[in-house]
Amino acid sequence: MRVGILTGGGDCPGLNAVIRAAAKALFARGVDVLGFRDGYRGIIEKDWITIDKKAISGLLHRGGTILGTNNRDNPFNFPVETPEGEIEYCDVSEQLLENIKELQLDNLISIGGDGTLSIANELVAKGAHIIGVPKTIDNDLEATDQTFGFDTAVTTATEALDKLHTTAESHHRVMVLEVMGRYSGWIALWSGVAGGADVVLIPEIPWSLDSIVEKIEDRQNEGKPFSIIIVAEGTPGPGGEHIIRDRIEGSGDPIRLGGIGQLIGSLVEQATGVETRVTVLGHIQRGGSPSPLDRILATRFGVAAAELAMSGHSGQMVALKGQEVVPVPLEEATRETSSVSLDNQLVLAARSTGISFGD
Amino acid sequence: MRVGILTGGGDCPGLNAVIRAAAKALFARGVDVLGFRDGYRGIIEKDWITIDKKAISGLLHRGGTILGTNNRDNPFNFPVETPEGEIEYCDVSEQLLENIKELQLDNLISIGGDGTLSIANELVAKGAHIIGVPKTIDNDLEATDQTFGFDTAVTTATEALDKLHTTAESHHRVMVLEVMGRYSGWIALWSGVAGGADVVLIPEIPWSLDSIVEKIEDRQNEGKPFSIIIVAEGTPGPGGEHIIRDRIEGSGDPIRLGGIGQLIGSLVEQATGVETRVTVLGHIQRGGSPSPLDRILATRFGVAAAELAMSGHSGQMVALKGQEVVPVPLEEATRETSSVSLDNQLVLAARSTGISFGD
Amino acid sequence: MRVGILTGGGDCPGLNAVIRAAAKALFARGVDVLGFRDGYRGIIEKDWITIDKKAISGLLHRGGTILGTNNRDNPFNFPVETPEGEIEYCDVSEQLLENIKELQLDNLISIGGDGTLSIANELVAKGAHIIGVPKTIDNDLEATDQTFGFDTAVTTATEALDKLHTTAESHHRVMVLEVMGRYSGWIALWSGVAGGADVVLIPEIPWSLDSIVEKIEDRQNEGKPFSIIIVAEGTPGPGGEHIIRDRIEGSGDPIRLGGIGQLIGSLVEQATGVETRVTVLGHIQRGGSPSPLDRILATRFGVAAAELAMSGHSGQMVALKGQEVVPVPLEEATRETSSVSLDNQLVLAARSTGISFGD
Amino acid sequence: MRVGILTGGGDCPGLNAVIRAAAKALFARGVDVLGFRDGYRGIIEKDWITIDKKAISGLLHRGGTILGTNNRDNPFNFPVETPEGEIEYCDVSEQLLENIKELQLDNLISIGGDGTLSIANELVAKGAHIIGVPKTIDNDLEATDQTFGFDTAVTTATEALDKLHTTAESHHRVMVLEVMGRYSGWIALWSGVAGGADVVLIPEIPWSLDSIVEKIEDRQNEGKPFSIIIVAEGTPGPGGEHIIRDRIEGSGDPIRLGGIGQLIGSLVEQATGVETRVTVLGHIQRGGSPSPLDRILATRFGVAAAELAMSGHSGQMVALKGQEVVPVPLEEATRETSSVSLDNQLVLAARSTGISFGD
Repeated sequence: MRVGILTGGGDCPGLNAVIRAAAKALFARGVDVLGFRDGYRGIIEKDWITIDKKAISGLLHRGGTILGTNNRDNPFNFPVETPEGEIEYCDVSEQLLENIKELQLDNLISIGGDGTLSIANELVAKGAHIIGVPKTIDNDLEATDQTFGFDTAVTTATEALDKLHTTAESHHRVMVLEVMGRYSGWIALWSGVAGGADVVLIPEIPWSLDSIVEKIEDRQNEGKPFSIIIVAEGTPGPGGEHIIRDRIEGSGDPIRLGGIGQLIGSLVEQATGVETRVTVLGHIQRGGSPSPLDRILATRFGVAAAELAMSGHSGQMVALKGQEVVPVPLEEATRETSSVSLDNQLVLAARSTGISFGD
Repeated sequence: MRVGILTGGGDCPGLNAVIRAAAKALFARGVDVLGFRDGYRGIIEKDWITIDKKAISGLLHRGGTILGTNNRDNPFNFPVETPEGEIEYCDVSEQLLENIKELQLDNLISIGGDGTLSIANELVAKGAHIIGVPKTIDNDLEATDQTFGFDTAVTTATEALDKLHTTAESHHRVMVLEVMGRYSGWIALWSGVAGGADVVLIPEIPWSLDSIVEKIEDRQNEGKPFSIIIVAEGTPGPGGEHIIRDRIEGSGDPIRLGGIGQLIGSLVEQATGVETRVTVLGHIQRGGSPSPLDRILATRFGVAAAELAMSGHSGQMVALKGQEVVPVPLEEATRETSSVSLDNQLVLAARSTGISFGD
Repeated sequence: MRVGILTGGGDCPGLNAVIRAAAKALFARGVDVLGFRDGYRGIIEKDWITIDKKAISGLLHRGGTILGTNNRDNPFNFPVETPEGEIEYCDVSEQLLENIKELQLDNLISIGGDGTLSIANELVAKGAHIIGVPKTIDNDLEATDQTFGFDTAVTTATEALDKLHTTAESHHRVMVLEVMGRYSGWIALWSGVAGGADVVLIPEIPWSLDSIVEKIEDRQNEGKPFSIIIVAEGTPGPGGEHIIRDRIEGSGDPIRLGGIGQLIGSLVEQATGVETRVTVLGHIQRGGSPSPLDRILATRFGVAAAELAMSGHSGQMVALKGQEVVPVPLEEATRETSSVSLDNQLVLAARSTGISFGD
Repeated sequence: MRVGILTGGGDCPGLNAVIRAAAKALFARGVDVLGFRDGYRGIIEKDWITIDKKAISGLLHRGGTILGTNNRDNPFNFPVETPEGEIEYCDVSEQLLENIKELQLDNLISIGGDGTLSIANELVAKGAHIIGVPKTIDNDLEATDQTFGFDTAVTTATEALDKLHTTAESHHRVMVLEVMGRYSGWIALWSGVAGGADVVLIPEIPWSLDSIVEKIEDRQNEGKPFSIIIVAEGTPGPGGEHIIRDRIEGSGDPIRLGGIGQLIGSLVEQATGVETRVTVLGHIQRGGSPSPLDRILATRFGVAAAELAMSGHSGQMVALKGQEVVPVPLEEATRETSSVSLDNQLVLAARSTGISFGD
């Protein structure tokens, strides 16, 4: 029996731990394991490595993925060089399916986010055998109670808040920390509560400058002339407008400059007169050794995916429901994302401890 | 309105975070908060402090408890000095109930483990108003899916395994790590999986030396002349016998010497001839700043307990069920502990990745 | 006897540890200790607290300063409100000297950077008794071999590099990390070596884009399609020009946007075509619990300053020379900063391990 | 040109970083690098690997040594199996020298402690070309101001003290932490100061129980009913007697039981009546990722050793003197260990902050 593994989408602590666990479970039953490089590109271009015991040694606590990932690996829209040396985007999914046959893969474990799993779903519809493993540090998949990588990202953001705290206090400043979360505020909410933020701003809850200023002034009146604001990168501006990061003029480059963090810092400083500093945590949240919890969840997901793959399942994704890892249909899994609701218990608990959501 | 708070039993990361969150939720509704020192002793001897905003500043990330705890605070069996200067153990529960009245406490939030909550239950039966908050780093309460402090303990144990790994590998040694867990193996199981242990020994699964030796030799045959064993302190000996730690002869003292960790190290070294080193992690697991997850859980428990207390409930304990914090009857809560079952999904996943339980 | 303590300038891990150690050494000889709030402002406005044993409890491992700091505390140019409610900058140094007399201070321990110590020097010239303790996370004082806070900042930056590494590798990206160091590149150099950076850019060494691109391409040719660049914030642009961070247009605010990190990221991405991501570490470097080394150095500085203060010295600063803490004249101390020279042994060692300085 | 590398003696964070740096510096000049397994055994038995760019990838932050180490690798007293299957200890140094010739090694970089370097010295006397790199987490070599691994060990011990602190405080207990240091107290001294210990016991300073008890009682009288004691493993008993760890009776095994830590805990508990808990940190101190400082020092040592090796030197050891890495004669290096003197500045500073050395 032969099973392939690939990883797609953005980096996430725990990817290697999934690969390791799946491979160990497959080895135990004598299954050959192929690792494709850079997501679906590895299958399309038959760029793969044999995953053996040596390849997975030491992977449990290592961040990143030994298989690499690639944002441009969509087989339905794949960049192909024309004879004239130009790039054309083509549907190469048939080629991919053929390669799967040629390589005699009985099943494929596809570890990735929204994009990667949606593609998996389409490939399954075309006859491929695929088991999905969900991956998002944002923890915003309705289909699973938790995703690996999230706890590590929350830990990194919380450590940053812990560090900013002492400086805020010593300098009587407002400190703004921008964290990841393009569509959902889970990282900001969890690390805001864990790191003792005073204001938590997330995409799901509209905010007003007045409300933030009021919170900062309330604290000043209580003898606390410093405040900590955490904001998810996808939080809209004060009028609900989407914030596009500024770019260095004329450069046409994708390097990010000021986002919502800087905007909020600027507005708060102008409104309160309190010195304000902004930190954008950036890719630090995606890297590093996974936390123990993430290693465990990644291990469980890897084993469960391997077992599904070996028993001939397809079109399923592994998910955590309560204390159990269970299979759910891939189709369903890629349909709904979870967002922070106003009556979420942690939001309410946060409010009870005095955290303002700027509303 | 007036609510008291106390902490009892062994130390646990997150106690201060519970106190802080409960106090914040109580302050927000104008409730006065009294903090009793050293568990029930503080009520019996009217030794308390006023908890105000200043008292809880900076508590979120601080280990331990500002209220102190005490193993000898049982009001039904309390040490009282007789006029002759001797210690007699008396039932002073009536005195405690009277003090509660005298101090005009509307409710009491009692944060503690088995012992502390059982006493709470008995006091409730005698008419006291008490809300319980469960506390155990062992995570072995049937009534709640998770307890705060557990994730921090698992993190500490996993970091220790990470460190032992490199030495084991460099020196071709067997490293034994003894962690907490008197009756249940949750800490050993979770950190064993997270830290890549080769053998996990827990109270719930009988083990044999042959089986451990086989695992170590299998690894040697695969070119891995080193192994990591993690063992819960409450794991019985090879014949199922309870291991009592040795003491320095004649000293009559309670200082612990060799426990199950040393016994296993000794047996393994004799049986395999491989140099073996034993580390007993000890109280390091109970201390330190709580992990983000534990701070969040502690905050949620604190807020929920305060809300129950303010709405006049009694005889309830807060618990995590799935994603929600809910009240459960104190009585039920103190009845059952949870232990690792042979068909626990994490046990099975661990086996699939090659972990041996020595059975 | 009576000694005052104040902290000035930017935040720095270890300030509290200096205060604690100095106070402990002073208490041991029965000296009263006054803590002035927000640097010299505390003396000018007689805003102080009594530092007693309780005040310093738990300070050793706590970041920041319980005394607060203030960038606008220069007694020679101090903001004073006129009767008309306007702000005028005045020389209030005479008032400060008078307050010192009135408060019967025998000596003053002034903990701060360049600015704070230069003022101390001028005040000494006017008759004040002051002992200086140098503080800069940049470690760029010629007069002392090391300053506290530097090791913590290097540790924070190194941890960030460790995290960026896995993502760079998984995604075949260039990761740019901008760290502190306005005039000197010590933090970038040390953490660049410790974190395995491929390119280190510092104010002292002019760089060219070609040279950076060459390094990145060399690595690609060796099968390493990812690179890590660390850059000190004060590094000039490719033409040697000083980089002023962009601001949100028209806002007139001091919120920082793109600095040298973003510029380099942009240039490198355009020149190599490799996806590049930039992280600006910012104030996270100034916060958090000091590293063990910094706690020790801060403790030694605090004790040495207290001893100098008690023995009636003035106009001296404590400094580390080799293994010993020694006094040096304040005057000399504030004159020269140290910068990274081309023949610095660590620069040469870095080059030997393949690190490029872009030159 | 061809240079060999080996590592000997106990584990120490930074060994891999030395190997990596030396190899990189050697590669840059086209030198072939051989890595011998398990110290001198690798040369004696011609058990070696080619160290190439791939072999050293990712080594900078990895604890342990990829080359392995071995306590039984002395070529002057090497275990050889006789034809009858018995073990005889023989002088195989001639064989080793011959193998060096046969393998056409121009030089050998020997990374190790006392034992390893003494052997190197003897081999040099017999004509071998060897450059030494000192390795000891104890930091007790007179010839170098600091050794790599020490800062990591101090950090691990300090983190343990930080964790024990909160428990000690919450439970009104005495916590004893036993750390490494068989002949010198550097780890106990540095981490004791960094971790805020109340009592520091080291081999160099005789202690009395009365003095320790006095310190604990002084603290109780100041309202601090808890204390932290750190003790180096080599500290003699109260009468100056050497403490041999107890063993499990009749087992004849080398597993360690009670050492000086337990003895002190037992004595203190009996004398004060305060509950006391003992933690023996053990091998955790030797493992884990090296601290940034240790990575830097290891890198500098590795580069310096490679340069000495390439320029044909022999019988030299690299050492840190002030800010510079310099060569010192191997002979001298192995002669003197450094111990903590009573007038060491850090000892005096520690006393000034109230730390008792039990004397």
